[in-house]
Amino acid sequence: MKSVHLVVTGFGNVGRAFVSLLREKRDDLTRRYGLEIDVVAVAKADGCFFNGRPLDVRQISKGGSLWTAGNPAWREGMSFGDLFDGWEPGGCLVECTLSDLRTGEPGFSYISQAFRRGWNAVAASKGALVVSFRELKDLAAETGLSLKFSGATAAALPTLDVGMFSLAGTRIESIQGILNGTTNYILTRMAEGLDYDEALKEAQSKGIAEPDPANDVEGWDSASKILLITNACLDGDHALRDVHVKGIAGLSADFVRSAAREGRVVKLMATAAPGRKGGRWSLDVRPSVLNATHPLFHVSGTEKGITFLTDSMGTVTVTGGRSSPRGAAAAMLKDIINIYRRPF
Amino acid sequence: MKSVHLVVTGFGNVGRAFVSLLREKRDDLTRRYGLEIDVVAVAKADGCFFNGRPLDVRQISKGGSLWTAGNPAWREGMSFGDLFDGWEPGGCLVECTLSDLRTGEPGFSYISQAFRRGWNAVAASKGALVVSFRELKDLAAETGLSLKFSGATAAALPTLDVGMFSLAGTRIESIQGILNGTTNYILTRMAEGLDYDEALKEAQSKGIAEPDPANDVEGWDSASKILLITNACLDGDHALRDVHVKGIAGLSADFVRSAAREGRVVKLMATAAPGRKGGRWSLDVRPSVLNATHPLFHVSGTEKGITFLTDSMGTVTVTGGRSSPRGAAAAMLKDIINIYRRPF
Repeated sequence: MKSVHLVVTGFGNVGRAFVSLLREKRDDLTRRYGLEIDVVAVAKADGCFFNGRPLDVRQISKGGSLWTAGNPAWREGMSFGDLFDGWEPGGCLVECTLSDLRTGEPGFSYISQAFRRGWNAVAASKGALVVSFRELKDLAAETGLSLKFSGATAAALPTLDVGMFSLAGTRIESIQGILNGTTNYILTRMAEGLDYDEALKEAQSKGIAEPDPANDVEGWDSASKILLITNACLDGDHALRDVHVKGIAGLSADFVRSAAREGRVVKLMATAAPGRKGGRWSLDVRPSVLNATHPLFHVSGTEKGITFLTDSMGTVTVTGGRSSPRGAAAAMLKDIINIYRRPF
Repeated sequence: MKSVHLVVTGFGNVGRAFVSLLREKRDDLTRRYGLEIDVVAVAKADGCFFNGRPLDVRQISKGGSLWTAGNPAWREGMSFGDLFDGWEPGGCLVECTLSDLRTGEPGFSYISQAFRRGWNAVAASKGALVVSFRELKDLAAETGLSLKFSGATAAALPTLDVGMFSLAGTRIESIQGILNGTTNYILTRMAEGLDYDEALKEAQSKGIAEPDPANDVEGWDSASKILLITNACLDGDHALRDVHVKGIAGLSADFVRSAAREGRVVKLMATAAPGRKGGRWSLDVRPSVLNATHPLFHVSGTEKGITFLTDSMGTVTVTGGRSSPRGAAAAMLKDIINIYRRPF
């Protein structure tokens, strides 16, 4: 039996779903993987939840909100770095803070500190990876540690796993993805006759789109994901400013309907492919018309999908995977298992 | 840089494709994974190719046939076991013999000997795994070695990777696959108007179906694959006799065409799902009618696909992957990389 200690940073929907899922799965993980996985602290900017014993979600939040005042597990003013004093290396950071796509903080500080303490890291937040992937990856490699981020790259849809593990040894010749469920839902409803504004409003009323939908509909969520996937699978160092991004905000209903009349669909495609003359790869996100023969043609509603074209394994497509905090939590748990499990 | 020694057993189309692919990829593997992978011997029942240096395909075969007489690398009468005398543990067996689905030999002897010598094993042949999966898996686990067999479970289509790695920590609630490209081709052509005999003959003339197509069209290839996938992903110990198998041999053209008229398709589905009242899982292979909403509905021609239903990640579907000796070789190479690569 191997004991694995986790520190969680950030405790929004995904962090909370993770701690709940871990509790639900704890016995199963012991039985199936020989792993005893415990959250030993939850760190915030202004303090830590920490009492020297494994933490449960009920010791951290009450009624959906963080429970600090009067909580015996809350240490006001304790910093993330303080936590590690006297601790052994070998644990794992679970990075779930809100990601800032320009500065990478606070994720970058947490992940780099974890590596310097000899801890592995899994992330659901994109900021640090979008801004500083190469630096973090090199830091992990120097120390023989793992940096995994399935939770930041379409979560329960296995994108990195397929690109880095299932296709190991192939030359990836292009990547195409429908990586954002919100925009795919809107486009699906537009193909069924709604205008953009109607479809967006419906998605918001169903909790599929956020009150401020800009990150999704302007394409930045998809751009961040194709950037992370490409950098990870091709050992690249592209930056977000290298991605040509055109979202679906205000997309003409006629454009979508006329494609539908021809038996085609409009999808917000995130694409990575070699530039002309085999040069530096070009990354873009834009509404694209797909023919019925395209492997992602049938990915509809909030579903996502990704297609890799390779030299030695042909074309491999993955679709599905739950889009929810629970799906993202399951993706992080998967990454943790794959860091610590026995050879198989 | 890590040096990895391989012994290949069996040298048919897949073994030959593997040795060629390894040569093609050698520099790339060094650069990307820090692995120097060499074939140090090819073992047959009546002798071994071995000359103390890395072997190339040109030292083993000439004009498509094995080159023994007069070959300085050929050791008549040298057995697989003899090879290991004086060798370090830590290498990897690449098992490509023709598989006997009743006895598991000669694969079983090769794999179990490799484990006893401290070598890992990857397999493209199904026999040993169909007959003795549990025994081999326990032997590997006792010694901390890896047993991987992507090459035996739909090859370039990642089935085991997704079920065991991408879905780690989920509870798999059912598995459905189109796992045989030959029968899927025949069914696709039947939906387009051909009779069974016409479609089979066409598949044979194109080299898609074998001269003796029984293993494919009677469902045993699909049955072996769903058995291996289920046993591996659910830690099961089902036997081939537990699988209810009905193939497509002689399938009525009317059945396929009437499904097509209703907008549905007939596929040879391999399914694993819990029995009634949550009891032992039930495995079967049979021609099944799929609605247009099924995630495998659009898998046509020689393509394959698999769908996992899970508790925490929803439904995940993978399709594609090259069906050829090169695809199987790439799947084995992928398994080898994933055994020896650095943490990532």
